[in-house]
This record gives sequence, structure tokens and C-alpha cells, in this order.
Amino acid sequence: MLCCCFLWQVAAAEEIKSPNGKLTLAFVLQNDGVPTYRLTYKGREVIKTSKLGLELKNAAALTSGFAVAESKQRTFDESWTPVWGEVKTIRNHYNELAVTLTQASTSRTIRVRFRVFDDGLGFRYEFPRQPKLDYFTIKEERTQFALAGDHKAFWLPGDYDTQEYSTVTSKLSEVRGQMKAAVTGNASQTTFSPTGVQTPLMLKSQDGLYINIHEAALIDYSCMHLELDDKNFVLESHLTPDAVGDKGLIQTPAQSPWRTVIVSDRAGDILESKLVLNLNEPTKFKDTSWIKPVKYVGVWWEMITGKSTWSYTNMDNIKLDSVDYKTVKPNGTHGANTAHVKEYIDFAALHGFDAVLVEGWNTGWEDWFGKHKDYVFDFVTPYPDFNVPELQQYAASKNVKMMMHHETSGSVRNYERHLDSAFQFMNKYGYNAVKTGYVGDIVPLGHHHYDQWVNNHYQYVLEKAAEHKIMVNGHEAVRPTGLARTYPNLIGNEAARGTEYESFGGNNADHTTILPFTRLIGGPMDYTPGIFQTKVSALNPSNTSFVHSTLARQLALYVTMYSPLQMAADLPEHYNQHLDAFQFIKDVAVDWDATRVLEAEPGDYITIARKAKGKSSWFIGSTCDENGRTSNIKLDFLDPGKKYVATIYADAKDAHYEKNPQAYAIRKVNVTRKSKLAQYCAPGGGYAISVTEAAR
Amino acid sequence: MLCCCFLWQVAAAEEIKSPNGKLTLAFVLQNDGVPTYRLTYKGREVIKTSKLGLELKNAAALTSGFAVAESKQRTFDESWTPVWGEVKTIRNHYNELAVTLTQASTSRTIRVRFRVFDDGLGFRYEFPRQPKLDYFTIKEERTQFALAGDHKAFWLPGDYDTQEYSTVTSKLSEVRGQMKAAVTGNASQTTFSPTGVQTPLMLKSQDGLYINIHEAALIDYSCMHLELDDKNFVLESHLTPDAVGDKGLIQTPAQSPWRTVIVSDRAGDILESKLVLNLNEPTKFKDTSWIKPVKYVGVWWEMITGKSTWSYTNMDNIKLDSVDYKTVKPNGTHGANTAHVKEYIDFAALHGFDAVLVEGWNTGWEDWFGKHKDYVFDFVTPYPDFNVPELQQYAASKNVKMMMHHETSGSVRNYERHLDSAFQFMNKYGYNAVKTGYVGDIVPLGHHHYDQWVNNHYQYVLEKAAEHKIMVNGHEAVRPTGLARTYPNLIGNEAARGTEYESFGGNNADHTTILPFTRLIGGPMDYTPGIFQTKVSALNPSNTSFVHSTLARQLALYVTMYSPLQMAADLPEHYNQHLDAFQFIKDVAVDWDATRVLEAEPGDYITIARKAKGKSSWFIGSTCDENGRTSNIKLDFLDPGKKYVATIYADAKDAHYEKNPQAYAIRKVNVTRKSKLAQYCAPGGGYAISVTEAAR
Repeated sequence: MLCCCFLWQVAAAEEIKSPNGKLTLAFVLQNDGVPTYRLTYKGREVIKTSKLGLELKNAAALTSGFAVAESKQRTFDESWTPVWGEVKTIRNHYNELAVTLTQASTSRTIRVRFRVFDDGLGFRYEFPRQPKLDYFTIKEERTQFALAGDHKAFWLPGDYDTQEYSTVTSKLSEVRGQMKAAVTGNASQTTFSPTGVQTPLMLKSQDGLYINIHEAALIDYSCMHLELDDKNFVLESHLTPDAVGDKGLIQTPAQSPWRTVIVSDRAGDILESKLVLNLNEPTKFKDTSWIKPVKYVGVWWEMITGKSTWSYTNMDNIKLDSVDYKTVKPNGTHGANTAHVKEYIDFAALHGFDAVLVEGWNTGWEDWFGKHKDYVFDFVTPYPDFNVPELQQYAASKNVKMMMHHETSGSVRNYERHLDSAFQFMNKYGYNAVKTGYVGDIVPLGHHHYDQWVNNHYQYVLEKAAEHKIMVNGHEAVRPTGLARTYPNLIGNEAARGTEYESFGGNNADHTTILPFTRLIGGPMDYTPGIFQTKVSALNPSNTSFVHSTLARQLALYVTMYSPLQMAADLPEHYNQHLDAFQFIKDVAVDWDATRVLEAEPGDYITIARKAKGKSSWFIGSTCDENGRTSNIKLDFLDPGKKYVATIYADAKDAHYEKNPQAYAIRKVNVTRKSKLAQYCAPGGGYAISVTEAAR
Repeated sequence: MLCCCFLWQVAAAEEIKSPNGKLTLAFVLQNDGVPTYRLTYKGREVIKTSKLGLELKNAAALTSGFAVAESKQRTFDESWTPVWGEVKTIRNHYNELAVTLTQASTSRTIRVRFRVFDDGLGFRYEFPRQPKLDYFTIKEERTQFALAGDHKAFWLPGDYDTQEYSTVTSKLSEVRGQMKAAVTGNASQTTFSPTGVQTPLMLKSQDGLYINIHEAALIDYSCMHLELDDKNFVLESHLTPDAVGDKGLIQTPAQSPWRTVIVSDRAGDILESKLVLNLNEPTKFKDTSWIKPVKYVGVWWEMITGKSTWSYTNMDNIKLDSVDYKTVKPNGTHGANTAHVKEYIDFAALHGFDAVLVEGWNTGWEDWFGKHKDYVFDFVTPYPDFNVPELQQYAASKNVKMMMHHETSGSVRNYERHLDSAFQFMNKYGYNAVKTGYVGDIVPLGHHHYDQWVNNHYQYVLEKAAEHKIMVNGHEAVRPTGLARTYPNLIGNEAARGTEYESFGGNNADHTTILPFTRLIGGPMDYTPGIFQTKVSALNPSNTSFVHSTLARQLALYVTMYSPLQMAADLPEHYNQHLDAFQFIKDVAVDWDATRVLEAEPGDYITIARKAKGKSSWFIGSTCDENGRTSNIKLDFLDPGKKYVATIYADAKDAHYEKNPQAYAIRKVNVTRKSKLAQYCAPGGGYAISVTEAAR
């Protein structure tokens, strides 16, 4: 990995184009030796001339005084097969420019590697092994994204600890004014700036360009936020600091994550982009047969709504090892009890679900949050009313998997201390997937959910899990950056406001028309859709929240919110009241051979069709905002010559996400690839369609 | 553990005495509800009226506004048998006063528990479980030790990360003026105040009272330093902060460590005190048969002096998993190679040593220090020239144990991640003891070697080691506080300037006349004595350091520096040059039935006699300062009616620690309990005597 530095000036400016020629990336070294880049799409400016570089702690900055030592171009084209995904095969096709820059005054060399795909740009910093740059500490990364105008932005407040905010839709110039209201309360939050925002950041220019800025392959680095210069509309990287304010301890050879700019004049292209995945490394896992998409139910929503409790007693202030749970009085509201879990297992088995998640099964839930408690859970000790071997046997007898839950309360050292025994426990009792949680401040204090040290923790858990053939669904962890290509056991993440917030005051009605353009650009989300009883008060009279969605739209989310891990989050009794609609959740695939975005406009609507893995059936989902609309789609993706039956689960005419959410209608129609559909979507509504080959 | 709060005013002042009546502890609640205490010894003030209490973060202080809710007295008297120690049986005899204090304005209760022994005072804060004090964060502990005058002090600069300083001997009023010069360079240091000093702090009043201030049973708390008010001679507790400045996260029920004041008008009583051990809990280990005192040699001093290297190659900037050591060029100076280690094993076997320590056996030593590297060692991968199974077999065939070395470079998370596999590796290959190291800053940065979070790490390692039946010798960890009573597998610690500093410029000639009064009050030190070739240049011509001790004094340290773990630190070839003197190291015991301090004055001299465990032989050691002296001792501790042969290893008349350190004379004399001895000690010298029963 030693860098060869040919110290003649190769070029001060160089351009490469995307394979289809629509994108042009220009690298320009300014006269003061400041590296810059510029990106255009069909001749329109996407990123204006923007500076590159990093400031270091106790060392000269890597921002200027560079000369180009070498530049190399190459073309790459391959297709690869994901272990699970939205499509069967992914093409990874780009033109690459790698510019090696030498800073003569310090004898240091860095490299900027650009990859231009048809759907956008990725670039990263590379730090070759070299005598004058062996170890360094990042003070700040100074990567600019100079935008061409005051774009419409779909943004979250910048935060070192959470992405669980409602998306604000505003012009960039309005971010500052709306920031204060955008920062709503959270279990752990650390905002840092009046104009700082998170990635993936979705933008739309006034002339109709869709632009998405994010990062790919975030490993051993701090998570990037974007600081907005709202006069010039320049975004600049802002890394998450650690407990002493450092933003990254680097040992060469090393590289930054890829900084990504996806761009198109068609919104659907953003959703179909595989750029972030392509910028991650192929998996090194030799055996991936243990990684399987999962459709699951779970003992969860009943606690989220307050109908039952995670805890087994009503004690407070407990020390884990000093409590004898067998002698204390149960509270009678504990959800994760053996008999009740068996009901879920029965339900899962009856309806063909793969797994049952159970939260609150392990001791400690009486006193787990907000106290910065170190030894908060041990991850192996069940409450007295949760019989692990009995449930293992019962579930296995019904061909259902139990899904593990590891809430860490942010106490990362404690989790690591128990990780081996926790995973051994899972292996012993047949659990093959774990939902992890990091609610609250990171312990030890001073660290943030998104800093390098904590990112390394998530990575450690992921790799340890793989050793144990365990799939991971990380909640409150850093938002994904396509790592699932390399570590396909990362089958889900949260890292946004999920369905749980429908019980905490509600998500905006347009939330699911935005998330696929923002959070999902990095990877699948365990959104936990499928709430049929949208009034939370039906479960807990004191909770006046309601789900900001019609029932029909809840079905659509299984298609529009891509994930290999899909929960039917509501209670069995609610599904039993609507078994006709529930049929869609039973039928819908969780792994796909093909995906077509039929309609899309961030903040307004998304309609997606997907072809089930290894099957001829298609599933279509459509979600819209609070205004409602009529969706017009063509079924021209269907196979020629074949006849299909479409079962359409749609909002009734009088449906409304708030006033009449459960009004839906189901109809069957015969369709072919020539069929068109005009389908009404209620305010906060949508529809779902399953399309199966007609019996011959 | 619920506290019963009887809210009447029981007493505003109360006194208890030591069992022998010489010490009096007075507790007085001042008019403003400030709790105070006072300690006298034979009517002389040891601690003048001193305040007690703590300041909390974001909560009212626990320093005033208290009323006495309850006070209880009791007497305790037991004798217990240590797993290893200086004496066969330890008497734990004290009178106790427990004062429960209620702060009416906040409805909070704390308890101060005092124990007065014949040799001093211990007291601690107890925080009962209660609704208004469940979790809290310590801003600072405000425990005062108001001294009666401008005592002579034997002090180290206060530091959150190291005790590896030369002791300064000065009046308290002179601390401020000498602080700057006292702070010498170190691998990781964080000084905090112009008058802050460390514990154990040894003091001597002008009227001849010897006072030692330290703490006992430091568990789940931050290490205490002492901040000196050098006008009033009041010391006040100063706790080690964590990365965000917090000084302790506490969940009730909880208690502070014991704050200890050992006092006597005879210096030897300080050395003989078992107060710190007595304030620790009895061990809960059911089986202690695997814990055995150890006399060992090792591949160590040759690297310390620069004669050989820890590293196998001369590479720099390596990433542990990317180096293929089998293909890189060895540097030819690697100490821990199989052939060389076998020489040590042969030497150990020939001379009856229990074990051979080998440092630098594992990969990573090319690039391990000062870079805040996270993944710095894996603790299981040997260098290619270190054959673990072959050495295991070879050592076992000679009845010698291999001793493990785990340098962590302060990267505590990395060590914890590898701890299970490292201990399994030790179990597999027959290692039963580990020397741990924490050289450099704690990673993650912001933490300190002595803060609560890192103290919990040492405790975790100790307890994990016990699960694997492994003994621990912790270097650069927090100084001991008698925990070895509870965890007797803690057979050693460093936490002071050891012999290694003789190669880094040298220790003061009086160093070993002070350490037993300071550092050793908390527990045994792996001082690694026994250097016969005191000129380091003999090993490494470029190193002009020399050992500030005569050869005879090196022998004495095996007696004066109590430890169940004793190294013969020099190279076999140097011992082979002085096999007559080496005989003492071979003979000296490492576990004892009785101990008598025959002479002692901190900073001047110490002479101690100890009776070997289960045997009739005694060993005597004497160390003195740079002035030399004649030691006068009586052998009246010997059994009546028995005849003994004393082999005296003494400085020759012209010996001198710098000018003529290797001049010694060995003589045998017949002695009985009526014998007296006047023995010359050279400057920086001393003597060692083995006393064995004469053949009948």
C-alpha cells in the first residue's frame, strides 16, 4: 500500500464523465494548491466548484499547498448479486479518477478518488502509508458541496446522537428560521448548529434536479453531518466529535467513507440508485446461507402504546444482580410472559411469519433508562415468567424463530462485556437475529452515538454477530451507509422516526413519502408498519396519539419502505378484525428480483412495484401525503403474454388518515402488461396491490 | 438496605476510642449542620476538626444542613488468615461509630461510618437506597484532613494518570515551591494543582507523630488525591474526573472507599499496620488453592536497559492484522525468542524459581505506544520466533511456570474485547499469572488511569482473571487499596517508580526507605529488585543510568519491600558472576508467618525481620539512604532455646551505591535470641540476613 509519488505536475484540472455521459466531474487544483471538484448533470450545475481537504489536530492542515503528483483514470463495470435486495443483480459501473496530491511543505500525500456513475458521484480521501503521515487526528473534514441555488430541502436537525426527528421541508434559506421548532425532544440528543443538518439530505432544485447527499462505507470514521452556509448555499462536512472533541483518530493507510451525490431529473432514479451499495466492498462472508429475509410479529407495539410493560415488576432503582425476581411482586402487566408469547407464536405459525420478536424478556427493565447506568442488562437472564427453553421448543415445533432483543441503554462497554455470552445464549436457544437498541446517552458519557469510537462498537457487534451467524437489526445506532453489501447480516436499522412515534404524538402524514429519499438511501429501515388499529387510545385510553396513515397505506409500506426485515407490528387481535386486509401482509414478499419506481415526488407520493424473489408475482405499494391524490400507473413491467390477477387494497372514498383511517376496499381485477390503473389515495393514504399470475 | 430514618436529634457530638484507648475519634455536627470529625492520639491532635461531605452535580450539596437521625456504636474483634501475607493471622479489632445524617431540606440521608483501630482510623460515606437519592453524580468529595502543623511530608505530585514520580521530602509549606521540579516527564501524566498530592501520603509531625493518609477498598469509585491548603495545612479530597469532568456516577445503595489515617509515635507501627487490609471485605473466593506466591525471573531487564528489544522487527506504523511477520525481516535483537527463553527456563529450574516472565512475546511491539491506537495487541498471537507450545512443554518438564504479559497500551476497550480469548489462551498453555500494563494515555481519550470508569476496568480484569484462576500483577493501574484481601489473586501492582527507573535515570538512593511508608501501605509492589550489575552501561553502552543501590541492598529489598511476587530482575549471566550473593535470593521466602519492623524512619532507613511461612527460618533486610549508617538490631524475635546460623550479606566497608556498589561481604555467625548486631550500611546500601536453625 505504499504510495508512489511521482513529483511532477501531472495536471491542474481533469474531467471524467459518467458511463452514459450525462454527468461530468471536474477536478481542479486552484492556484493556491487547494483541491476542488465540480459536478454537472446534463450540463446543469449540481455541485459548483467546491473545496476538498481536512484540518488536523496539532498538525498542518491538508487543505492547500498541494500539487498533483499523479492522476489515474479507469473504467469499472461489473454486476453482482446481493444476498438480499430490491433487485436480483446490481450493476456497478463507473469511471474513476484518482488524483494523488502532494503537499511539498510537509512532504505529505493524500489521494482523492472520484467515481462517476450514471446515477451520481462518489469520492473519498485516501491516506497512503507514509513517513510524514502515520497517525493523525482529524480536527474537521472540510469537504464542500456548493449547491447551485436555494434548493428545496428535506432535512433533519444536525445531531450527534439521533435522527429521530420529523423531516422539515423548506428552502435552504429557511433552515435557520425553522431549526428551533424542528428540534423536538428526544431520549438523547446533541444538536450543534443553527444550520447543521443530517444526511442523507434530499434536495430539489428549482429547475427540477433531484440531489441526494450522503456517505457510503462508514467504517472506523466519524459520521458526517452537513453545515449549511445559508447565504451561499454551500454545505460543508461536519464530523461527530468524541469525548474530547476529536473527530477521528486515523492510522495510515486509511481512507474516509465515500461522500455521495446522487442526482437525476427524475425523482424515481434517486430511489432506484444503487450507488451507495456499489461504493461498499463486496462481502467477504463465504457462507451467507444463514442470512435470510424475515417477516415477523412481536411483543412490542403493546408496550410502545402503554398497553403492557417491558418490566416484570414496578420496582425502581434496582441493581441487576441484587434483585431476586422470584421473590418480588410482579406488576401483572408484563408483556413478555410465556403464555402471551405463545399466542404470538401461534399467530405467527398460523399466518406464515418467520419469527417472533419479544422485548422485555430479560431482567432489568424496571430501571434501565436515563441514569447512565453502566451494568444495566446482562442479556442472558430472563424474567421468571419468560421460559426460554419452553418457548424455544414451542416455537421450533411450529417452525417459527424467536427473535432476540438486546437493549443496551447506550452502555456500550457493558454490552461488549456480555456480547460473547449473549450470542452464545442465542446460538444455544435457536435465536438467529437480534434487534439491538441504544436508547439514551452513550455510556461512558462524552461519547456520541455517531462518533468514531461508538461507530466502531456497532461494527464490532456486527462482526461478532456474523461469527455467531446472527443477523442484526440495529436501533438508535448510526444511520446505515450501505454496509449491508459487505456485512449482509446487517438486515435492518432504525435511525429515523419509525412507527413507534405514531404512539408518541405521531409522524407527519407525508413521512413515508420522504423516508425512501432520505434515510433509506443508506439501507433498509425496520419501520415496523402494519398498524391496523390506528387509534392508540384503543390500546391505552390515556394515549391520544394516532397513526397518521390509513390502513391501506399501512399495507403499501411493505413495498415502498424496502427492507428484508418486515414486521407486522400490530396486535394479533387487530389483524383478526381485518383478516381480508391482513392477507396482503401475509402475501407480500420480503426479497425481490426487480424493482420499478412508478411514480415519485419527495414529500408528495411514492409508488413502487417489486417482483418477488424467484416468483412471477409482483407487489405494488403507493403512499401519499396529507392531501391525497389519484395515482396513475402502468403495469408495463409485467411479463408479455401473461395474464395476472391484481388484488387491490385501497382507501375507501371517504378514507382519511385522521378521520376515517380504517375505511378500505379490496377488489380483484384481471390485468396484463398493457393495463393502466388510476387509483385514488386518501389524505395520508395509499394502496397496495398484489399481482399474481392468473391460473391458466 | 433501606435506611430507617428516626428523625429526632440523637446527638450533636459523640466520641469513640480505639480498643487500646490511645486514639479518640470525635464526631461533631456543627451548628449549621456541617458534619465534622476530629482524631487524637494519646491526647495529641492528629486530625483537627475537619469537614465531611460531597458536592453533587445538578443537585444540592451533601455538605451541610444535616441533623443526626441515629448513631450506633459497636465493637468488632476477629482474626483472619490471609491467603498470603506478611503475617499468619491478622487481627481486625475496632470500635465503630455509624452516624446517620438527614438533610431535612432535601429529605436525603447519608451515613458516616467510623472505625477506630489501635493503629488508626477508617471512615467512609454510605448512601442508603432512598427515594430522593437514587442516582447521583459526584462533583467533588469534600473530605478534610486538617493537620496540626506544618508536617514533614513524603509526597508525589497529584496526577490523574501516574504515580511514577520520585518522592519529594519537604514540609507541607514547601510543596508549592517544589511542585514544578517534582513533575518529571512520564508516559502519561495529568497533574492538576500546584499543591495537589497523592496518597498514600506519609507525614511526620514536628513532635514525632507518624501519620499516613490513604484509602481502602477502592471499588466503583474514583481514586482520591489530596489538595493541600498550605496556609492552614488542611488536606481535602480531590477525586479523579472522567472524560466529561464527572467524579463518580453513583447508584444507591452505595458507599465511598474508606478514608484511612494510620497514626503512631513509632514509625515501625505504620509499616506493621493492617488497617487498610482490615477495611476491605473478606474474600468470597471459595477455592484459593490456585493462588500462590511467586518468585520469578524474566526476559525484561534486558529490554528495559536497551540491550534487546520487545519487537521482533524494526517496522514502524503497523496494523496488527495486516502484517505477515513470517515474511518480514527480523531485527535480530528480539529478546523473547524461544532459544533465549529456554535459557531463562533453565536458569529458573536450576535455581528453584517458580516462573519465567516473558515480555515482547506477542505481535505488535513495533508500534504500540503513544499513538492512542485502539487495536494495538491481540494478546494471543506470538511472534514467529516464540514457540508457545514448545516453551510450555519445556517449562513444564522443568517444573517452571511461564508468566504471561499483557501490555494494553492503555487501550482498555481493546483489552476487554480480547480478555476472554486471552485468558483462555493462558489456561490452554498453562500460564497462571499475568502482568498487565497500561502504559500511555487511556484510550478512549479523556479518561484517566484513576477515574471510576477505568478503575472499573481493572476490577473487571481482576474478577475475570479469578474466573480463569489467574493471578494478576497490574502495572500502571491505580495504586492498590488493600483489595487483595477480597481478591487475593491481585498479587502485585506497580503504581510507583520501580526498578525500571534505575535504567531511566535512576531512583533516589532513599527511594526504598520511603516506599514501604507510602505506596506499599495499599498493597504489595512488583518492585523487581535484584539488580547485581548496577551499571546499565554494561548492558547498553549508550545508557549511562545506574542503579542507586549497592548490591547488598538489592538483596535486602526482598525483605523490606513486601510482596508475594518477587522478581530476580537481573540477567542470569550477572547472577552467575555472584552466585554467593545470589544464594540469598534463592533462599529468601515470599510468604511469611511473622513480621517485625526492627528499625524504621521514613527517608532514612528501614530494617525488617520476617519469618518464612511454615518454617523456622527468618530473613532480615535493611535499606538506608544516601548517607549510610550503622544498623543496630536485636534478634530477640528468635525462638528461645534455639540456635541459629545467620548468613549476613552486607556492604563492604568501601561500598557505595554509586562509586562501589558491588562491594559486599558475606559472613556466617551463630546467633540466638539474645544476639545483637551492629551492621554497617554503605551510602545507598543495606544488608540482608538469612537466619536458619543450626543443625543439632
